[in-house]
Amino acid sequence: MMIHSPHNPRIKQAVRLRDRRGRQQQRRIIVDGQREIERALDGGVRPVEAFFRADDADLPAAAALRQRLLERGADCWEVAGPVFQKVCYGERAEGVVLVAATPGCSLADFQPRQTTLIAVLEGIEKPGNVGAVLRSADAAGVDGVILADAAADPFNPNTIRASLGTVFSVPLCVTGSDQALDWLRQRGLQILVARVDGDLPYFAADLTVPTALVLGGEATGASQRWCDSSITGVVLPMRGRADSLNVSVTAAILFYEALRQRTR
Amino acid sequence: MMIHSPHNPRIKQAVRLRDRRGRQQQRRIIVDGQREIERALDGGVRPVEAFFRADDADLPAAAALRQRLLERGADCWEVAGPVFQKVCYGERAEGVVLVAATPGCSLADFQPRQTTLIAVLEGIEKPGNVGAVLRSADAAGVDGVILADAAADPFNPNTIRASLGTVFSVPLCVTGSDQALDWLRQRGLQILVARVDGDLPYFAADLTVPTALVLGGEATGASQRWCDSSITGVVLPMRGRADSLNVSVTAAILFYEALRQRTR
Repeated sequence: MMIHSPHNPRIKQAVRLRDRRGRQQQRRIIVDGQREIERALDGGVRPVEAFFRADDADLPAAAALRQRLLERGADCWEVAGPVFQKVCYGERAEGVVLVAATPGCSLADFQPRQTTLIAVLEGIEKPGNVGAVLRSADAAGVDGVILADAAADPFNPNTIRASLGTVFSVPLCVTGSDQALDWLRQRGLQILVARVDGDLPYFAADLTVPTALVLGGEATGASQRWCDSSITGVVLPMRGRADSLNVSVTAAILFYEALRQRTR
Repeated sequence: MMIHSPHNPRIKQAVRLRDRRGRQQQRRIIVDGQREIERALDGGVRPVEAFFRADDADLPAAAALRQRLLERGADCWEVAGPVFQKVCYGERAEGVVLVAATPGCSLADFQPRQTTLIAVLEGIEKPGNVGAVLRSADAAGVDGVILADAAADPFNPNTIRASLGTVFSVPLCVTGSDQALDWLRQRGLQILVARVDGDLPYFAADLTVPTALVLGGEATGASQRWCDSSITGVVLPMRGRADSLNVSVTAAILFYEALRQRTR
């Protein structure tokens, strides 16, 4: 099945998924890139339809992916080059774009297999930062990520891209900060919050016990809710001119310190 | 002194500094943002001229910076809004842009006060990644950074921006990989290279001795030159679906592991 016209209604619908409003209205997301699409399918995402650039549609990798998509019930379309340009995003699409149902990510859906290490991201604004944290969480073996009072949509195409598709493999939920705190307390997790004015160097904390690591947004850090006598503020020592690290870098350092302590 | 015309030759010259070729021809760089400019001045960069957006030129922060620039011998210009839009970059300029002499960054200029921890970045392509590594190097107290066989210009505006201006405070040089290796060997540093097929988990390495940490480019990693029996390959354990971390994240994890070991 071939699409030649940029005015094709499927193409127009798909393009609207680049905006949050379009994703909310259609309850669908758009995924660029073979690797990201493979990870979405691995993660149980329900594919709706895929657009393959006609020039690349016969390549072996594309053929294998198409077969997999057809088996999962998706429609697959070949799309003329100029039309594909309209639906894809930058260089990253690698000849295929997927439209899929938005994965469930309520707190009720959130059932990580273990809860030995949970990350809470509160109010992070940049989709690329959320994606970068998810990529590091996946690599370090974090059990699940809670986006609390989230400003960014986890299925923003920039988040999916920056996560390399791990947004579909790391257990993830979007909820309010109060609900997140309740959830953590019910499970008896130690709660640590990264703060520039934290008392404890992060490597002096015991990360071998079941732990939640809370990271605040780029501008203001974590809210006062996480300033409580039962919650420990941890700090990354700063030895230079600048007084802060990017939130995705802070997250990765904390995740890998937990992995290190748990490996020994 | 006020500039009203976008055809003003100073403005045209400054705009050319957005491109590497312009920077090479003029031997100048362009710096956006008050904080970045302050750090450039702190780092001994020689300012040539600064352009202040006329609307903001009377704000106290702008006035203090202008005074400092005048004392350092720079010309300061007020620039009409539409002209400033032409010379600035995105939202980041914060009402002021500096033109400065390109700092010296040959191996001969490279004289970190200590050589207990040196980072070597080989062939990193994205200016934003180089800047992000510099920001983490500054925070973790790395003594100096060598850009070896560099694809990126350390004074690319995106590098300056991603580094938050720490490109001007961290001792830095640009050289060939062979020269870098000679330099490290002459000083007797332990050399560790981050490799996906490294033998040793990075946290099992002794980072308390004088050490060089080598990080390769985004696509291909470090060159074969760093595969030698006298050089140890270290690996970051990967527990998830994805098989790699962003180079700036890898760098930060290694830098902070060194800081952790040296703090204890």
